Amino acid sequence: MASAAHLWYVHRMLATGGFTITTYHFASDNGAPVCEQVMNALLDCNRGVETAYGADQFTATLAQTYSKFFERQTFVFPVPTGTAGNGLALGAVTPPYGTIFCHEGAHIVTTEAGAPEFYSGGSRMTLLPGEHQKISVATLEDGLQRHGIGNVHQMAVSALSLTQATEAGVVYKLDEIRALSAIAHSAGMKVHLDGARLANAMVHLDATPAEITWKAGVDILTFGTTKNGTMNAEAVITFDPEVAKVLSFMHKRAGHLYSKMRYISVQLLSYLEDDLWRRNALEANQNAARIANALRQCSNVDLVHPVHINEVFAILPPRLLEALRDKNIQLRSWSFRDKRQGQRMVMSYCDSAEEIQRFEEVCREAATSES
Amino acid sequence: MASAAHLWYVHRMLATGGFTITTYHFASDNGAPVCEQVMNALLDCNRGVETAYGADQFTATLAQTYSKFFERQTFVFPVPTGTAGNGLALGAVTPPYGTIFCHEGAHIVTTEAGAPEFYSGGSRMTLLPGEHQKISVATLEDGLQRHGIGNVHQMAVSALSLTQATEAGVVYKLDEIRALSAIAHSAGMKVHLDGARLANAMVHLDATPAEITWKAGVDILTFGTTKNGTMNAEAVITFDPEVAKVLSFMHKRAGHLYSKMRYISVQLLSYLEDDLWRRNALEANQNAARIANALRQCSNVDLVHPVHINEVFAILPPRLLEALRDKNIQLRSWSFRDKRQGQRMVMSYCDSAEEIQRFEEVCREAATSES
Amino acid sequence: MASAAHLWYVHRMLATGGFTITTYHFASDNGAPVCEQVMNALLDCNRGVETAYGADQFTATLAQTYSKFFERQTFVFPVPTGTAGNGLALGAVTPPYGTIFCHEGAHIVTTEAGAPEFYSGGSRMTLLPGEHQKISVATLEDGLQRHGIGNVHQMAVSALSLTQATEAGVVYKLDEIRALSAIAHSAGMKVHLDGARLANAMVHLDATPAEITWKAGVDILTFGTTKNGTMNAEAVITFDPEVAKVLSFMHKRAGHLYSKMRYISVQLLSYLEDDLWRRNALEANQNAARIANALRQCSNVDLVHPVHINEVFAILPPRLLEALRDKNIQLRSWSFRDKRQGQRMVMSYCDSAEEIQRFEEVCREAATSES
Amino acid sequence: MASAAHLWYVHRMLATGGFTITTYHFASDNGAPVCEQVMNALLDCNRGVETAYGADQFTATLAQTYSKFFERQTFVFPVPTGTAGNGLALGAVTPPYGTIFCHEGAHIVTTEAGAPEFYSGGSRMTLLPGEHQKISVATLEDGLQRHGIGNVHQMAVSALSLTQATEAGVVYKLDEIRALSAIAHSAGMKVHLDGARLANAMVHLDATPAEITWKAGVDILTFGTTKNGTMNAEAVITFDPEVAKVLSFMHKRAGHLYSKMRYISVQLLSYLEDDLWRRNALEANQNAARIANALRQCSNVDLVHPVHINEVFAILPPRLLEALRDKNIQLRSWSFRDKRQGQRMVMSYCDSAEEIQRFEEVCREAATSES
Repeated sequence: MASAAHLWYVHRMLATGGFTITTYHFASDNGAPVCEQVMNALLDCNRGVETAYGADQFTATLAQTYSKFFERQTFVFPVPTGTAGNGLALGAVTPPYGTIFCHEGAHIVTTEAGAPEFYSGGSRMTLLPGEHQKISVATLEDGLQRHGIGNVHQMAVSALSLTQATEAGVVYKLDEIRALSAIAHSAGMKVHLDGARLANAMVHLDATPAEITWKAGVDILTFGTTKNGTMNAEAVITFDPEVAKVLSFMHKRAGHLYSKMRYISVQLLSYLEDDLWRRNALEANQNAARIANALRQCSNVDLVHPVHINEVFAILPPRLLEALRDKNIQLRSWSFRDKRQGQRMVMSYCDSAEEIQRFEEVCREAATSES
Repeated sequence: MASAAHLWYVHRMLATGGFTITTYHFASDNGAPVCEQVMNALLDCNRGVETAYGADQFTATLAQTYSKFFERQTFVFPVPTGTAGNGLALGAVTPPYGTIFCHEGAHIVTTEAGAPEFYSGGSRMTLLPGEHQKISVATLEDGLQRHGIGNVHQMAVSALSLTQATEAGVVYKLDEIRALSAIAHSAGMKVHLDGARLANAMVHLDATPAEITWKAGVDILTFGTTKNGTMNAEAVITFDPEVAKVLSFMHKRAGHLYSKMRYISVQLLSYLEDDLWRRNALEANQNAARIANALRQCSNVDLVHPVHINEVFAILPPRLLEALRDKNIQLRSWSFRDKRQGQRMVMSYCDSAEEIQRFEEVCREAATSES
Repeated sequence: MASAAHLWYVHRMLATGGFTITTYHFASDNGAPVCEQVMNALLDCNRGVETAYGADQFTATLAQTYSKFFERQTFVFPVPTGTAGNGLALGAVTPPYGTIFCHEGAHIVTTEAGAPEFYSGGSRMTLLPGEHQKISVATLEDGLQRHGIGNVHQMAVSALSLTQATEAGVVYKLDEIRALSAIAHSAGMKVHLDGARLANAMVHLDATPAEITWKAGVDILTFGTTKNGTMNAEAVITFDPEVAKVLSFMHKRAGHLYSKMRYISVQLLSYLEDDLWRRNALEANQNAARIANALRQCSNVDLVHPVHINEVFAILPPRLLEALRDKNIQLRSWSFRDKRQGQRMVMSYCDSAEEIQRFEEVCREAATSES
Repeated sequence: MASAAHLWYVHRMLATGGFTITTYHFASDNGAPVCEQVMNALLDCNRGVETAYGADQFTATLAQTYSKFFERQTFVFPVPTGTAGNGLALGAVTPPYGTIFCHEGAHIVTTEAGAPEFYSGGSRMTLLPGEHQKISVATLEDGLQRHGIGNVHQMAVSALSLTQATEAGVVYKLDEIRALSAIAHSAGMKVHLDGARLANAMVHLDATPAEITWKAGVDILTFGTTKNGTMNAEAVITFDPEVAKVLSFMHKRAGHLYSKMRYISVQLLSYLEDDLWRRNALEANQNAARIANALRQCSNVDLVHPVHINEVFAILPPRLLEALRDKNIQLRSWSFRDKRQGQRMVMSYCDSAEEIQRFEEVCREAATSES
């Protein structure tokens, strides 16, 4: 784990002496290795010749498998990153002259280097505020009214993007998505879900793939699997054949139609097999719950957001941080939007049980010594 | 191997009954599996947590390793496909109002769905003719003169893209690249190499990485490794820190900065280890030479292009095709730019020795029975 | 009239001593002043305050007036140049991943600096050959077949652009447009007309505005008036409300929704009043016919294209050029696509009768002296 | 003057019965007619043939004339609207992956339909708060720090756009511009001025063109003249030959290189003649000062912003509005960013002296009756 999520990639290459990698614990679920089941699937498919560009036997079953998963005809466009997925998905439903309504702290705004603008060819994001990075019905309605629908001096209202779970690790309830989708649809917008941690949200809500997406009004989504056990395998999912046609050209054009397509397709297939997605997400969510519970015992700990999935955002007192460091647990610091400084901890399917126990023990001791 | 390189991806998904996969021999080097050395490198790196987005210990050494390979400070931007690589590379050296000079049959023109236009944000390709898909000095000079440099009623002259080896499997000699680069540079253009099969060209020319690129005037290249043994791992390579800065933003923005970067970086590292690139390319080139030699014995075989690398383009007589089919060798048909119909055979590091022998035997028998 | 249609605008600004303007005769209809009727309309409307951005009393009647002209509900988007008009029109019917089929010598290809690519956000033009800059049914069909419809490795087939009259001054007959439109529509393409000299074509065909556009299958057009008497006033015309909605955003966004809209609207209104468009175009066409007839008397004159409208393309013998120069008539030289050198003469509503007579006399004398 | 700055242009065209135009007083300086001096210049130049696309005798002197005006080599790119000008100027200094820092209420953000995003090909605007629509040094520094320079997960910091005078009618002092420019330059950004009402700001500051632009660190500006007496004639101005080269291509490509260029060039020339710009701006500023002074006498009038130029933003009590209406003065209502409702009055060179007197009388009477 490194100290510098924001290091300039090129600066690193320019640095003659390389760069120092500081190790943090629970720094990100992106840091986890590929899980065994997925790695085995990759090994298994690595035999013989397959036709290039998606005409292989594995890709052949992808749409069908996902259609079963989503209980509806589903179109699947594999991509290597969530940034590519969000850009592609939003670009498919937003014209260059359109605007995407989203939370001001959404990953697509803060950390994707303008992918939506790139893939849509010049659109804009209209930013909405909201606690725990969630958009409320009132905020969306107010935003739409301020913007003006059909006002040519502004950009065309075209998409609503929700992150499920949000970047604060908080989950939209099904009826919240339904209510937001209804407003969006009546304004002529499509509804997009950034599902980087969708499996974790599904586990939290105990919702089916259908319930959390199209049954709640979602038109298109970025389906994340990388953070939950695969090797850079995400997918843009849509249920609309017209949008799928648009995507098929955009997907190839951006360079995401792999020549050796089998290697991403088998991962996306393996991810659904034997509910791998659920098992991994459950493990990560439970780990986060344990960490949160441990912290709740200590005084002066501020759990900044509710802990719904595998993320714990907290402001820990210096003494507790020190106690953790003494036990060799170094946490990644985090700047909150209100400029407060704290910690972000992200759990994954492969967290060490010993490490979590150690964390719990430090908290227990801290709680005891305080009382 | 499938019959349908050009199948509409979405049509396949829409097709309820799936689609038929016809098997051809020597259909494409893209159809080969990942070679053992690279797969082992992937397995080896799949341990423990690494920092996301390129701040891992493997990516840390990438630029250094490639700098040694190219004998000069080198910036490396991993991408999953040649389409992404060419788009990104050309987009970094071509403004939206610029034009890229290239061969009318270049892969970037015929088979990449407008990636250069997408990544550059609206540029144009100016198409030049030329035998064996090669651009000559005379053709480039004529094209530049017709276009007019600094003519605002036209687009700004900005890049020359060469494919090395060309889509016809033919290699530019070092002095040919040097001469073309000199013209391009004096017109204010950058020189780009589409190196989907650069290793094969290097083996054919017995040239070093430096000689075939920057020493010959190449400013930026797409370095292909997928067709030569890896799992969707290409790289944009530049030697210019200013271009690298531009690329660092474009690369992230397009979604090519993998969160689990290690899995593409180790492949690019493994590709250079123990000259893997050379061994695999040599094998593939030699296989093609054997096939070409076998065909040369037969009458009525038209070897359409010189066989420099791992590709054989030929027009085979029906009787020979039938004899091959009788021995279970089915070739992929190919439409040449002059509308003639023939066959394309592409060899790879993992061709079966038995299959090539069988091919040779069929040819030998055909030659004997003719005389 | 200047020697340098292709002068780099900035070079001129950088030149400290200014630049020399050489005077040619019949150099371009773009060189003519604004005709009296239009200038009077501008003066008449220059009274009192009007609401900005098109909510003025003149713009209020624009759509209605053009709907009468075209005998159908018509949407009118004023623009200052044909380049803006073509870009906007094509951008409204071509997605970034689409391709526009057009003649390889079309103005949108050769002289608009990539406006279609800019306005569409990254599309491509697929170039077709054809005599007198006309596309034939056979050529279009062949082009579509080579391209492949629904092939994601290529760009989506989206628009056909015809220039009426062509850049060679030749007119498509109504049944030719109908036949081309039928093919285009069946391939899912929209049909665009570059009507820089549409009035001249209408006069030549004696066709109504409806006949030459939507009745022949045209979906969208650039309606030129500048070359025929106005002050930089063109319009994008569509009959499709959905396309009009797209255009309304694109038009504003590109900066073509004038704040003082009345000054372009009154010109477009005046252009239709008392058939001004027809009177001016008739005058220009007749002038060209006289020049062409005069040339036909002389030997060794090659009239390269049929003379349908107000343009005469010819290769004149040096002796005739000299005789014209002796009488103070200097012609603009022209490079034909086959690299031959000749002359282009463009007539306009305001050519001097005396000058044309002088031209005729020189030709008559040349013809006499030859015999 | 119309009730609907925000009417959807197409809706109007679709409306069969036309639309109602409500008349307001002081609604916008965009509503004024072309002033006599400019109209005469247009008439004067409307003689004989001139070469197209800027190679005419008027355009020939444009750069020279503006170089004198700005006391430095100046490049001038005429455009029909401020939206086109701002888009073009920002697009020339912002790459597609760049971000423009500007005020959250800037015209480029709220009322130009995404022109900066369009012309730059996908950039983003980073919005800063600030009283009277002004950006302060502290706000800019904070914004830059939050964003992070050289952070590839965000967009490249590329331009700062200031509106002079701001959309609230308030003027940046010269040392304020200098301080902001210094910060911007040290972050690698170019400084852009939206000078829709630059003449009014120059009059207010009694500053020279050089002082208010490059001497204060401005790299590129949109020079407005339309609101101050011309017929849709604005210009992008830069002092950097490299930026001018980029602009020359972008300008043509967007369709702003008029074929009959003389008609915009003579306006830009006339605007500087005999200090027309200063005379008109002075008249408008003085009118606004009179209106503001009149309002200051009345109680319960909230002058929301300082009155520096020709704009008065105020919240008038209902009784005063009624008294004005009784004297046939109807004001345009205005929504302030804090959601308060009030009035915006914009004066111009051609306001009727009688009307202003009438306004003053109503205020005087209101003040008297109150006391």
